[in-house]
Amino acid sequence: YISPKILEAKLIQLLYEDVGMGDITSHAIIPKETNVEAVIISKEDAVVAGIEEFIIIANFFDLQFKTNVSDGSKIVKNQIILSFYGDALTILALERTILNLMSRMSGIATITNKLITKLHNLKVNTRIAATRKTAPGLNYFDKKAVLIGGGDTHRMNLADMVLIKDNHIAIAGNIQNAIDSVKKRSSFSKKIEVEVTNFDEMLYAAKAGVDIIMLDNFTPAKIKKAITILKKEGYRENILIEASGGITQKNYLEYASTQVDIVSMGILTHNVKSIDLTLEIKKRNEKNSYKY
Amino acid sequence: YISPKILEAKLIQLLYEDVGMGDITSHAIIPKETNVEAVIISKEDAVVAGIEEFIIIANFFDLQFKTNVSDGSKIVKNQIILSFYGDALTILALERTILNLMSRMSGIATITNKLITKLHNLKVNTRIAATRKTAPGLNYFDKKAVLIGGGDTHRMNLADMVLIKDNHIAIAGNIQNAIDSVKKRSSFSKKIEVEVTNFDEMLYAAKAGVDIIMLDNFTPAKIKKAITILKKEGYRENILIEASGGITQKNYLEYASTQVDIVSMGILTHNVKSIDLTLEIKKRNEKNSYKY
Amino acid sequence: YISPKILEAKLIQLLYEDVGMGDITSHAIIPKETNVEAVIISKEDAVVAGIEEFIIIANFFDLQFKTNVSDGSKIVKNQIILSFYGDALTILALERTILNLMSRMSGIATITNKLITKLHNLKVNTRIAATRKTAPGLNYFDKKAVLIGGGDTHRMNLADMVLIKDNHIAIAGNIQNAIDSVKKRSSFSKKIEVEVTNFDEMLYAAKAGVDIIMLDNFTPAKIKKAITILKKEGYRENILIEASGGITQKNYLEYASTQVDIVSMGILTHNVKSIDLTLEIKKRNEKNSYKY
Amino acid sequence: YISPKILEAKLIQLLYEDVGMGDITSHAIIPKETNVEAVIISKEDAVVAGIEEFIIIANFFDLQFKTNVSDGSKIVKNQIILSFYGDALTILALERTILNLMSRMSGIATITNKLITKLHNLKVNTRIAATRKTAPGLNYFDKKAVLIGGGDTHRMNLADMVLIKDNHIAIAGNIQNAIDSVKKRSSFSKKIEVEVTNFDEMLYAAKAGVDIIMLDNFTPAKIKKAITILKKEGYRENILIEASGGITQKNYLEYASTQVDIVSMGILTHNVKSIDLTLEIKKRNEKNSYKY
Amino acid sequence: YISPKILEAKLIQLLYEDVGMGDITSHAIIPKETNVEAVIISKEDAVVAGIEEFIIIANFFDLQFKTNVSDGSKIVKNQIILSFYGDALTILALERTILNLMSRMSGIATITNKLITKLHNLKVNTRIAATRKTAPGLNYFDKKAVLIGGGDTHRMNLADMVLIKDNHIAIAGNIQNAIDSVKKRSSFSKKIEVEVTNFDEMLYAAKAGVDIIMLDNFTPAKIKKAITILKKEGYRENILIEASGGITQKNYLEYASTQVDIVSMGILTHNVKSIDLTLEIKKRNEKNSYKY
Amino acid sequence: YISPKILEAKLIQLLYEDVGMGDITSHAIIPKETNVEAVIISKEDAVVAGIEEFIIIANFFDLQFKTNVSDGSKIVKNQIILSFYGDALTILALERTILNLMSRMSGIATITNKLITKLHNLKVNTRIAATRKTAPGLNYFDKKAVLIGGGDTHRMNLADMVLIKDNHIAIAGNIQNAIDSVKKRSSFSKKIEVEVTNFDEMLYAAKAGVDIIMLDNFTPAKIKKAITILKKEGYRENILIEASGGITQKNYLEYASTQVDIVSMGILTHNVKSIDLTLEIKKRNEKNSYKY
Repeated sequence: YISPKILEAKLIQLLYEDVGMGDITSHAIIPKETNVEAVIISKEDAVVAGIEEFIIIANFFDLQFKTNVSDGSKIVKNQIILSFYGDALTILALERTILNLMSRMSGIATITNKLITKLHNLKVNTRIAATRKTAPGLNYFDKKAVLIGGGDTHRMNLADMVLIKDNHIAIAGNIQNAIDSVKKRSSFSKKIEVEVTNFDEMLYAAKAGVDIIMLDNFTPAKIKKAITILKKEGYRENILIEASGGITQKNYLEYASTQVDIVSMGILTHNVKSIDLTLEIKKRNEKNSYKY
Repeated sequence: YISPKILEAKLIQLLYEDVGMGDITSHAIIPKETNVEAVIISKEDAVVAGIEEFIIIANFFDLQFKTNVSDGSKIVKNQIILSFYGDALTILALERTILNLMSRMSGIATITNKLITKLHNLKVNTRIAATRKTAPGLNYFDKKAVLIGGGDTHRMNLADMVLIKDNHIAIAGNIQNAIDSVKKRSSFSKKIEVEVTNFDEMLYAAKAGVDIIMLDNFTPAKIKKAITILKKEGYRENILIEASGGITQKNYLEYASTQVDIVSMGILTHNVKSIDLTLEIKKRNEKNSYKY
Repeated sequence: YISPKILEAKLIQLLYEDVGMGDITSHAIIPKETNVEAVIISKEDAVVAGIEEFIIIANFFDLQFKTNVSDGSKIVKNQIILSFYGDALTILALERTILNLMSRMSGIATITNKLITKLHNLKVNTRIAATRKTAPGLNYFDKKAVLIGGGDTHRMNLADMVLIKDNHIAIAGNIQNAIDSVKKRSSFSKKIEVEVTNFDEMLYAAKAGVDIIMLDNFTPAKIKKAITILKKEGYRENILIEASGGITQKNYLEYASTQVDIVSMGILTHNVKSIDLTLEIKKRNEKNSYKY
Repeated sequence: YISPKILEAKLIQLLYEDVGMGDITSHAIIPKETNVEAVIISKEDAVVAGIEEFIIIANFFDLQFKTNVSDGSKIVKNQIILSFYGDALTILALERTILNLMSRMSGIATITNKLITKLHNLKVNTRIAATRKTAPGLNYFDKKAVLIGGGDTHRMNLADMVLIKDNHIAIAGNIQNAIDSVKKRSSFSKKIEVEVTNFDEMLYAAKAGVDIIMLDNFTPAKIKKAITILKKEGYRENILIEASGGITQKNYLEYASTQVDIVSMGILTHNVKSIDLTLEIKKRNEKNSYKY
Repeated sequence: YISPKILEAKLIQLLYEDVGMGDITSHAIIPKETNVEAVIISKEDAVVAGIEEFIIIANFFDLQFKTNVSDGSKIVKNQIILSFYGDALTILALERTILNLMSRMSGIATITNKLITKLHNLKVNTRIAATRKTAPGLNYFDKKAVLIGGGDTHRMNLADMVLIKDNHIAIAGNIQNAIDSVKKRSSFSKKIEVEVTNFDEMLYAAKAGVDIIMLDNFTPAKIKKAITILKKEGYRENILIEASGGITQKNYLEYASTQVDIVSMGILTHNVKSIDLTLEIKKRNEKNSYKY
Repeated sequence: YISPKILEAKLIQLLYEDVGMGDITSHAIIPKETNVEAVIISKEDAVVAGIEEFIIIANFFDLQFKTNVSDGSKIVKNQIILSFYGDALTILALERTILNLMSRMSGIATITNKLITKLHNLKVNTRIAATRKTAPGLNYFDKKAVLIGGGDTHRMNLADMVLIKDNHIAIAGNIQNAIDSVKKRSSFSKKIEVEVTNFDEMLYAAKAGVDIIMLDNFTPAKIKKAITILKKEGYRENILIEASGGITQKNYLEYASTQVDIVSMGILTHNVKSIDLTLEIKKRNEKNSYKY
């Protein structure tokens, strides 16, 4: 969502952390102005993410590149994802951070996509959404990977939507106080979501005109009952229902099949299995002789 | 390793990312100057990490706290790790990022510790080391968690040690060129490690007087043979041997039992299973009435 | 909305701009460790804003202070708003920037409050909202001042809500394409607003289920007609209507009286008349003898 | 005054504030690599400022542009100030901040120029100077706009000149102490100005050899008398006289006609009436087919 | 000149450079919460500078300290300058940077003071000024040390005064063009200095009413002649004269004795001989038992 | 060691410090879009350093340049080091900082090279190493200049190597405790050096298997004796010996001739004599007519 020039600054900062006082190995071995060709290869089937990030980095560091894939493409084991060409010292200094970022983003996109594809095959239209359980500092990249995989980002940060949770209700005293305060004090431009733990709270929230109700730790059976109640009371049309809490790869289908609108899963960004990517270098000496 | 005041700046930056233009929910619901008591509870057995980070954040934001654990402590399911007290708006704004950081660090410390404990029980003294396959931007925290779990950080960044890898050798032409350049051009204050793929390269590196040899993608049997050769040639004493590549939770014992000095495992920081931590708030109104 | 510690960093940055290489006058005249008492006085009736900002700065620079007002208080000509005590060099270095910030914020809060008070006296409940026509870099403070004056912040930045404007529609080809894209690609957590220029677009948007419709440059008469149409078609209940474009202090009442939900006015933050505040210093030498 | 590359960094920071986590509307509607042509049009007669800032931003974000105006040009209602061409997502993300900056700067340049033009028509050579009553964080841009309008920037920040004000004198005890300290302790490279409230202070300052005397809140009649006294005592030649305090658009001519050297007016930057500028987009699809 | 809180940020940044990924030696050896007493001792006679910087750092890192000296104090060989007490890990991490800063600043203050003291003993009142030949990034600290030694800072940066140099004249064509442009375009708040290479240029500048004339690479004899000419033409009173170029510790007395107002010497900050300072640690275990 | 793009950010920051609110002289004199040719000339024989830094700055600010020298080249008095061409306002704003940086780096490279050349002529292979006595904030550039001159950087910062010094031993109680802690707690990737003050400590350290022993303030005679002892005990082969403390240009040959491996000298970066470089401008008006 962020335009490339802005993303560039975020990425450069990540790259510098790993460089420290400099890549002492490469500088001792590789003469200045050595240009090389390199490729990034996937060791696994995956849905790739991080291509836009790679392109921004490549442009910033004057690397030429070519690729047949883009964010969201399906790739197979041993496929060359990217070929590029440029200063060897630069490429070696960036290698590990680029791979770490693309591996993580691709891991998130891959699992998200797998879950959603299964739903689509079953003609279930429930959205799969991420939570705010991301790696600290990687909010933006983790959420973007979910999006690339076909999921919904949910809130990017605390300013994105009003979401009244158990801790807010605990401090406010009860759900009524919390919703009333919010109705009075928040901007018309924001949606309001409330986390409820029982049917009474749910109905109160529905009557109060909130935009979204989160059924927290409801079983699939209880979710179905909740939806039945809302329909009966005439609130189903104008409210989105989100199921949240304890939803895993194993049980998400059950949840998604309850006619809930959104299933949110911390697991997407919290227990990431990175895709195994590797960078291989092929030497080329003739400077300027190369053009993609 | 970094002194608290320095760490503070790193942590504040992480916290701000999630806050964005502000926590619109809490500000709509919670009156200014509301103080609350809160606890962080673990939903799993774990080796805890991130306590020092919590303390720095708590001090920075004027939260009072008490705890019976410290980094590296073993905790059990449902144990209260930390109790604290302070401004509700502050606590709610920080909640998710604090949990995300501690969950990740504890996940890394827990798996590291599990692997090392098993070695110790078997009286195997091989070190378990992390690699640079960390989450981008979280280098420091990921490596620190490995240390807390009992592992070795390996290089923190590219300036930490000379490590000649396949890509360097590819560019240099052969391992001799690479080692010679390094010998001539690197500071006496740095160790030199070389990644080798066969016994010839290994012997060349040993003769050249490098400090550490990395046996890359050697099977346990091949590692044993390598060590036998080094012993026979009289190089074993002054050189550390590191096994690397494809080492998992399942097979690491085999590697560690070859009399290799170090086993390095990307899995420690690359496929992190975060520990499930939760923050619960208990309302308290009497400002200044509370002291730990 | 932002917690004090975060705001602190923003404020410090503003203060430093004016200090440059140092306050050469004060350092030439005032001995170190000279403490003084100072007051901020308003030369006009106003609704004050910027008190929270003052308190954060005072705490950061170790100034003691007392005040009888808070953000949103009505103050009268010649009223002392704040009294404080501390290092003279610090106070003189901060004086101008503090006054500039509080003057601007109070100017915005005052005009906003004046407009809203008149509406309330007439029992009109239409919201008055700001636009994004703020001073660059002062988004947060300008919008907060509107809030303090009783207005609605509208979007804080481009990530806050989907707002389809004329330029989006121009690129998308027509309003249908624009709304369809947004429906498919934006997160469930965001409201969708569309700027329309005629009744057809308005009805299309209403049918498509957007959350808010902005009637752009409609006359009050045309707005009334628009609302009548929406009611007739059964869309009025679930949609908010915002009037925007060319609305001034002189004509806003006409707009607000059309039963529109929101009237947005660039004038609140675009042509700010700062309140005239002044800082007076009274010398006091006895260090540590002073306590508020 | 600042070279473009330095200004670039300041401008980018302003632009990012408004973008937040990204322009969610445009990203949902506009395909990547959509190029468009856009124009900025003034809805009022004005003296334009901010053109240099626009050019820096355009170059940074790879937008092509053409223009017939430059900073300080007179423009008329409905005139196209700038035409440009480039990535639609970039242009829409920058639109509001660019307009806000140019509107404010043009507003300041326009009023400054209007006041000065009238003086020139009357053959009065008094300088019109800004004060430090700028918008916080916009010091540089506000002062630059005054310069473009034909005014004098006065001090850019506290390090620019020694300016002894009432608060300094209050702390020093009297004007003699203050001037003596400054004479002893400030660098030869700085001018010294003193704010005086009566003729005695004025004469003391003149004798002490200060460079500039500020007559604070003197009526035009009193200013004339002050100048007569200075002439009689032989100090007029080597001293600049500045009139300050309560000078408005209505009365500034009276002040400027007193033979004072400088009239300083907070109003120039404190109560800014922004010029109404607007950005219109015309779609163009053929990438690379366009050249200014 | 800069207030402590602002200086703090500058200093912290310098400290962090040396810490890198952490002080691995101290963390391996010293238990957390070990408090120690330490002293800084001078191995040479000197005029000390950097005490204010030390105090800011000590306050920031919660070190207690006591001292009998302040910036500008004369210290003798083996004198204890500062005693302090606090966390051992913090003190060892800061040691080298603190010493480096104080050594450099004291070296600059000492040589400046030595030169000025000799002048004062000879009853010569010429000012000794620094140039902009400082260490990059240390402008502020180098200039401040000159001030502490009794010298004049001259311009802190390029915005401080108009100084027309040979390169400006080369581009402008001749000195007349350069001075005319400046007269027309610079703020009344700035002094104007011109570098001249012969008597004609000098007289032109004097007639044009500049504030300061720099005689560039004039011999002492030629300077005397220049001053005689200026007196004869009636310009001496209102103009400051600065001698510059090739002035060293050996010949500066000759220059200073020509009745020139200012002698500027690059040598003060360009070839710094740092004072030899050392930090010694005395262990103390009893936390909280210690109070200065 | 750091790749150009990263170095760029460091350099830009240094440049900005000197620019402040802008180069008011040049902007008053030089029309926009004036291009000039300029040269940097050395007024002394030297080993040049800072050429890479110049190139990065030139590229960043769009200056064309040509040069016959590179870092480490020997240059002679009055030699033109660099010719370049570009915007006059940019060149004048950067002039002083570029010269300051190159002068300092060249001064360090020159003295380092002089000392090492003498050793090489005498067939002595001892390394000359810098210490951490650099100018604060200039660590990287000071160390790089030593490297360019042919010296060894030693530790770049506190994370580079374990170096147990007197203060660590004082806190640990004795050298045994200190070495034992380090052996247990530091990463295998780091070398361990110990500073010793007598033969007993030296032998303990050698037995404990440290990598480097620093003989602190040993006379050349005592160093020879130390080496004899180490040989006798069989430790000489596997340990590097560093002589440190009180080593100057006058006595370093004596130290280097003791068969010690490294001689470290604070003087290289602590008492820098900058090389006298100057920038001369030649006007050229024809924009775009010039190409190197």
